[in-house]
Order: sequence, then structure tokens, then C-alpha cells
Amino acid sequence: MDPTTFETHPSRYRHWKLTLAGETATLVMDVDGDHPHRPGYELKLNSYDLSVDIELADAIQRLRFEHPEVKALIMLGLSTHSFKVNFCKFTNETRIYLEDASAHSGLASLAACKGTTAGGGYELALACDETMLVDDGNSAVSFPETPLLAVLPGTGGLTRLVDKRRVRRDRADVFCTTAEGIKGKRAKDWGLVDHVVSRSKWDEVVAQRARALAEQQTVTRGPAVQLPELAPKVTDKAFSYRHVELTFDRAARTAALLVKGPDAGPPADLATAELWSLRAFRELDDALLRLRFDLAEIGVVTVRTTGDPKLVIAHDEALAKASSGFAREVRLLQRRVLKRFDNTARSFYAVADAASSCFAGVLLELALGADRFYMRIDGDEQIAVQTSIANQGAFEMASGLSRLDARFYGAPDASQQVLARGSEGPIASEEAERLGIATIAADDIDFDDELRIAIEERASLSPDALTGMEQSLRFVGPETLETKIFGRLSAWQNWIFTRANSTGEHGALTLYGRPERPQFQWKRT
Amino acid sequence: MDPTTFETHPSRYRHWKLTLAGETATLVMDVDGDHPHRPGYELKLNSYDLSVDIELADAIQRLRFEHPEVKALIMLGLSTHSFKVNFCKFTNETRIYLEDASAHSGLASLAACKGTTAGGGYELALACDETMLVDDGNSAVSFPETPLLAVLPGTGGLTRLVDKRRVRRDRADVFCTTAEGIKGKRAKDWGLVDHVVSRSKWDEVVAQRARALAEQQTVTRGPAVQLPELAPKVTDKAFSYRHVELTFDRAARTAALLVKGPDAGPPADLATAELWSLRAFRELDDALLRLRFDLAEIGVVTVRTTGDPKLVIAHDEALAKASSGFAREVRLLQRRVLKRFDNTARSFYAVADAASSCFAGVLLELALGADRFYMRIDGDEQIAVQTSIANQGAFEMASGLSRLDARFYGAPDASQQVLARGSEGPIASEEAERLGIATIAADDIDFDDELRIAIEERASLSPDALTGMEQSLRFVGPETLETKIFGRLSAWQNWIFTRANSTGEHGALTLYGRPERPQFQWKRT
Repeated sequence: MDPTTFETHPSRYRHWKLTLAGETATLVMDVDGDHPHRPGYELKLNSYDLSVDIELADAIQRLRFEHPEVKALIMLGLSTHSFKVNFCKFTNETRIYLEDASAHSGLASLAACKGTTAGGGYELALACDETMLVDDGNSAVSFPETPLLAVLPGTGGLTRLVDKRRVRRDRADVFCTTAEGIKGKRAKDWGLVDHVVSRSKWDEVVAQRARALAEQQTVTRGPAVQLPELAPKVTDKAFSYRHVELTFDRAARTAALLVKGPDAGPPADLATAELWSLRAFRELDDALLRLRFDLAEIGVVTVRTTGDPKLVIAHDEALAKASSGFAREVRLLQRRVLKRFDNTARSFYAVADAASSCFAGVLLELALGADRFYMRIDGDEQIAVQTSIANQGAFEMASGLSRLDARFYGAPDASQQVLARGSEGPIASEEAERLGIATIAADDIDFDDELRIAIEERASLSPDALTGMEQSLRFVGPETLETKIFGRLSAWQNWIFTRANSTGEHGALTLYGRPERPQFQWKRT
Repeated sequence: MDPTTFETHPSRYRHWKLTLAGETATLVMDVDGDHPHRPGYELKLNSYDLSVDIELADAIQRLRFEHPEVKALIMLGLSTHSFKVNFCKFTNETRIYLEDASAHSGLASLAACKGTTAGGGYELALACDETMLVDDGNSAVSFPETPLLAVLPGTGGLTRLVDKRRVRRDRADVFCTTAEGIKGKRAKDWGLVDHVVSRSKWDEVVAQRARALAEQQTVTRGPAVQLPELAPKVTDKAFSYRHVELTFDRAARTAALLVKGPDAGPPADLATAELWSLRAFRELDDALLRLRFDLAEIGVVTVRTTGDPKLVIAHDEALAKASSGFAREVRLLQRRVLKRFDNTARSFYAVADAASSCFAGVLLELALGADRFYMRIDGDEQIAVQTSIANQGAFEMASGLSRLDARFYGAPDASQQVLARGSEGPIASEEAERLGIATIAADDIDFDDELRIAIEERASLSPDALTGMEQSLRFVGPETLETKIFGRLSAWQNWIFTRANSTGEHGALTLYGRPERPQFQWKRT
């Protein structure tokens, strides 16, 4: 199988058309004719659906960095893919990124739904700030998944309906079991859409609402920075980038992720795509996505860092101090990438076993986000971790907690103690273990064996049980819309997809579009 | 199959021995020799395991009502069932009831773990206020589910570990993948147990900690009221109690739940087991459990009420005004039963279609907790709902919200408006629909058809998809330890149980105790 590429560019989009006009951008879903939007479903990766999401994610990212003048994004033509079921973390992440851009980056979004907007299309509309539906006596919004396909509107749909849009739960129940959906005034009365607009006024009102949304934005981005292709070197043993390397051993089902710190301090003018803080995290993001999609059988990933901790800390400080919109975008991107790391269903063991190790500042977040952190105790205490301003809460997890606070959930003093001690200088392995940063610190005699055995043991356990276990332990503490989507809705959807009623021989999803009626096993569990 | 009975009595326990000594009660797990605790697992209901839980639930309930003098419950011998996997809602509910008794009823619990306490036994220990482990160089606590059986410690185990006991997430990761568990000082240092006690001091320290827990209790219960058997009449068409009737149609996969209001006002002395507020809700609880276990194929349940709303309201008020511990226990029992209703994976349609309908006060909670509420519009407005003090927040859902606040999530004014209007008298169907109480109000001409079609449609949908959908829509809003256990942990466990890696031909659970090694499908999803 060819490796999946997550890099694209508006000039190469096959499924969306992006147009820019001053403060407004428009994304029109425009399906490539070679990929008919036939009903049906493939349980495994549907490259077509995935590529729609890849382009959407690219568009949002580029608007943030390359087009800081854009303050409102209009999304059109969401009706196309009504019966393509695509649910995966990447899709959910992309929808959350749309909300993130609105909440933090002054980029609002408007779903303009002309024609019936069903399923995944309406789930995307729910991720927008406002939703508008044409009132032509015909066009509706709908979630036909449960009645027609025996699955859920699982890309955040159910959660956003009641938790974000606050549609009354009994109405949401009616809506989600009404295959033909709800149209016109009722759609507005029930809170399913924000505006119902006649055909004749449609274009005018869409433009007007986009302007109004643009005017409400108070956060400014910029200066504009173009995002060049990362173009990693891809072999059957490794994905190699400038600052990131992911090597893997398919037979052992293990991989090694290495992130390199910057070679020099931050430039006086941060606004460049080559800035380490931006480039390294874009690379890390790409490596994580390739790990998820192309290395499905890799179960355990060691995470190492290398470089000069002082330079990482200098970058963290420059980025935190800078008041430009660009600097904010880089911080937000780092936060998203770290969340992608938290949400990647592989066992991560962070490892500090050499003096060149560089778990400092923003890179320390990788050790805090890993399932375990192994540190070697060296005689001269060269192996150490360092904190920076980046560990003080800027990189919230999906739960809203910093990784330090999640680690010491319910004991905020312990976080403060780490930060206070960190401000005095490097924390060597033994002390890091005492402070609760290292899971296990071991001396030279034991370290290699202990780590080797831990990796082998982990690689021998059931991947499903580990996924459920890691999901429960990583996301300790408060739940948010985001954690509810990944932790609750996705888990139910996963279960439903494994059941015969949806994907079995006589399941509704299997038979959709065919003359046979599904046959259900009626037991409620 | 014989119907399951959820009624028992300490004199008939087969798996536990309950002894009382002043302020302390002791529950010893004492396995009936006819049921050897062999390793192994049955995916379907394991009547043995279920009966252990039925007895435990009975013991906790009786301590609350019949033995108000007991302030500390010691649980011993939790090691017995290390490898019996029993996970179901009833088990989870029973564990939450143990925590509820401690939080609200002055009944603390102490898990005294002598010998290895593994799996479900340790999950039960986590539900206690304190856990004590003998320090004999051998005894340990452990969660061997993931490494040995390829499933989760899913009866609240993972959630309680990090969210309740606040074990550091990386240590929890090590613990949950270490089959032999963790013993002695390390178990205490990691927060897995509260006390580690030598063999020689064991009995003394157990008694001492139980006394200390008893002394900390400030809530008093009583007067004591014995709980008589409900002894419903069970036929192949209905379960009939004094105030509750559940009739069912197995062919149509529908059932009708009817709850009758009280025949008279509350007695001057409330402290009797025949008090409507207690008896009717014990009956409802029993009916819900029988529905869950013995009517697995019933998908849709209509919920009707009948009686005099004024008498329900009088009972609600008498109960709210009473300051006795007994009255508090009855209110807490009603709250638990209503939560059991929320957590029952069937589609509930509440129906008010006759002048005798009685959705008032605590019975209105059933309409608010149902997935939909259908009201008939009658000319003389006899069909109506009424509010009472019971709707003002005493009956919190697992989310911590009242059912009214969950219904109007994010719009607390709407709840207040309903309560204000309700204080003025009955709210007839049309107004109830306007206020957001009724999902659908229809007049005589349409009502019967509309309801019939809604029931038929619902009964035709996939039970799995409905379970996932209802779980998402019912539990709108904040998440708590309780909702995390039912919504997130159970969902992951459900998924893991359907996977070949645990329950397939070569799965770890299937092969446990046999010489063959499990063969895993390695893909991470």
C-alpha cells in the first residue's frame, strides 16, 4: 500500500474549492467526478473520505497561517456526502480545529446549507459557529445514521447536538431517528440551525452573515507565513524530517520517535516557516498521522529527544513573549499537535537515557503525555529534565488541564513544586522520580534490561485492551465537549461498528442501498 | 429460563455472611461450595456472579433501612473471585450505592484485603472509603484483566483508580499491566491502598479503623424499618406489584410500565415499609431489573402513571419536610431508582393520554427522564402534569443536574419558568408542550396513530445504535465519576468484549486457563 500523504495544497484539492475575497473565504465541496458519491460504506479506511478531510484540515491550517486577513469562512455544499460514513479521529480532530480557529484565532465559520445536509455534512455544520438552511420546502438537515445505517452520527454529531447547540434531548431523540430530517421553521425552532432563509434572499443573507461574523472577530492573526511542504524521506524503515525521525520495526511492532531540539536560538523575527517551534511540530504532526494510518500494527513507540535544552527554552520564551498573531498561531499549533499525541492510540514510553536527551519545556510535554517515562540515572547527573514557561498551562490537554496538572490530578501542589524546582535548573533522574516526573528511574546496571522487558511485554498485550485502558488513564479529570466526543461517543460508535446489526452479513450498513432489509438481533445489552 | 429474582435476605445469602456488632457490620465473602471459583468466563449472564452482586446490593440496602445503628461496614475476603469477570450495570450500580451510602447516609466502608485482592475484588475495594492490605510479603492488589484476559478492569476500576483515588496515571499504567499486582509499601506509596498492616496486628487494626470510620460519621439514620418481600406476581405477560405493573408483548418487543399513585395521603408517622414513596419505588426498581435481565428483547417501553396527583404531591411534601433519617433514606432510594431508570438501555416513551394520568412530582421525573413524552390534548384539559418540591433538584441525575435542568441544558431560565408555572397548578398538554415538558402534544384525532407509529418505528431500529444514541442524548452536560464509569469505561469495555482479541476463538478470555496462548490481531484502531 502506498503511504498516505497528509500534505496537500489548495492548488491540488480534488474535493474542495477554496476562494478568497477580503475578510471572507469560501470552501465549496466539489466532488471529483472520478469518485462518485454512491451510497455505501467501507469499514476500513476509505481513502476518498479521508482525502476530503485531509484537504479540509489543510485549508483551515493555511487560512490561519497564510491568510491572516480572513475572518469568516463560509462552507457550502455540505450535502454531497450524505451517506458516506467516515469516522476516525482525524475527522474529529479537524472539526475541533475549526472550532479552535473560531475560539482562539479570529476565524469564524458559517455553514450555508442549500439542499439537504445529512449525516457527516450536518456534523460538519455543527462544528461551525452558525448554520443557515435554505427554506425551499424541501431542504432539510438530518442524521439518518441510526434509522438507515444502524450506527451513530459519531463524528461529534450527537454530542454537539445536545452539549454544544443545546437541542433539547427529547427533540434530539426525534431528530436522530427521523431519516428524512427536519426542515424550515421547525429546524430553527428546535435549534438545529440558526437561520432559515428563502431562496430569493439566500446569496445576500449568506454574504451578510459572513460579514457580520467577520466584524465580530477581535483576535487578529499575522503576519502571513506560507507553509512549505515538509516532504519527509519515506522508506520502509523510517519517516525522516529535518527535526523529527520515526523509525520502525514491523516485526517487533515497535517504533522509535526522535524529536531534535533547535540548532540555534530563535531569530529576532520569528515570523518564518523555518522557525523550529513551527517546523518541528508540523513534522511531529505529520509523523503521528503517518504512524496512525500507515503503521497500524505498531503498538509501542519510544519517544526520545535530543538537543540543547537551553535552546528549546529560549524558543519557548521567545514564543510566549511575542505578541504577534503569528506567534499565537504557532503556540496553538503546538497545542493541537500535543493533543494529537495524547489522542494517538499507541503505547508511548518516553525515554531519557543519554546526556544529549532534551526533555525541556515544550518537549517535556511529550514525556508528561506519554504513558510512562523512563529515565536513566547517570553518575554525573547529565540526564535531566527542564521546565519552561511552556509547562505552565499554555498547552492544555482536551480535558482543560495542563499535562502537569493531569499527572498530579487532585494534587496541584505537586505541579507547583515541580515548576518551582524547575525554575532553579535541570532536574536529574533520581530527583525527577522523587518529584513524580519520571515513572521509573534506574541506574546503568538495570536500565537497559528494564526498558527492554517493558517494551516487549507491552508489545505482547492485546491492542484493543490497551486502547481502552490508555483512553481511561490518559484522560483523567474533567470532561469537555472534546473528551466526550473522543472518549464516549467514539467508544460507543466503535462498539456499534463491531456488532452484527450494523456491519454483519445482514446488518443495515452492509445492506444499505440493496433491496434486502436488515435483520437485527434484538437483544438490548 | 426461570425469571431472575432480585429479592433475597441475609438468612438466605449463599455468597456473603453478614454479621452485626454495634456500630460495625462485617460482610465476608463466603463462597458456596457448589459453585467452585474456577477460572473462566461466560460472556452471557453468569448467574453465579450476578447472585453475588444481588446479595451485596441487598446487604447495603438493609443496612441503610433496617440497621441504622451501623456506621461502618467491613468487607473481607474480596480475593475470592479474582478471575471471574462480571461486568454489568447492576454491578456498577451496586458499587456506586456503596459510595452513596457513605456520602449521604453515614455508612462508611472499609475493604480489609488479606490475601491477594484481584480484579473485581479490588474494584469493589476501590468503591470503599478505605482499603487496607496485609503486609505478609505475598498479598497484593492487582488488575490482571488487561495482561491476562485482554479486557479492562471495567467495573469502575480504571476510572476510580485515577479519578477517585488519584493514582498517578503513569503508575496506574504500570499497575494495570502488571498481572501479579503490587504489594506492601509500594501499594501504599502509590495510593493503591490506604494502610499496609502486619499479620500480627491485622485484626486489631481492622477493628480500630472501623471504629475510627464509625466515629467520623455525622449523618444518623433511623428509625429502623424492616423491608418486607415485594413478591410480585410473575406471569409470561406481566410482572405485577401493588403499585407497579409491567406488561409485555414479546412478539412486538414492547412493554408497558404503569406506576400507580398512592391511595391516600401520607400517614402521620412515615416510618413504615408500606409508605407509598418507599414501596412504589422499591417495586419500580425491581421491575426495572427484571426488565433488564429477563426481557432482553423488549426494545420500547411506554411509561404511564395513574392516580391522584394531589396525593403524590402530599407524599413528596411530607417526605421533604420530614427530618428523620428514614425519610432521607426514602428520598435517596427514590433518587437511586430514578437513576436506574436513566441507565436502563431501553427506549422509554412516557405517555399521558387519560384524565387519570398522574405525572406529578416525583412521578413527573419519569416523564422528564424518558426519551420522549407524548401528551394527548383533551378538550377539558384534564390531562396535565404537575410539579412539586420533588422536581426542584432533590433527584439529581448521575451528571449532577436535575432532570429539568438536563432537559433545558444551558437554559436554566426555562427550568425556573416551569417550576414557577407549576406552583400555580396543573399544566395541561398544550401548555406543557409550549413550556418544553411534552415532546409532542396531539389532539384526539392524531394522538393514537402518532403514538402507535412512533412505537412501531422505534421497535424496528437497531438496538445497538439506539443504546449508543440514548446514552449520548440522556447524559447531556457535565460528567462525573459515575457518568464516566457508565458512559466511557463501559463503552470501551463493551467494544473490547466484542473483539476477537478477547472473546474470539483465539482470544485471551476464551483461552484463559488453557495451555494455548492467545493469538492477537495486532492492528491498533
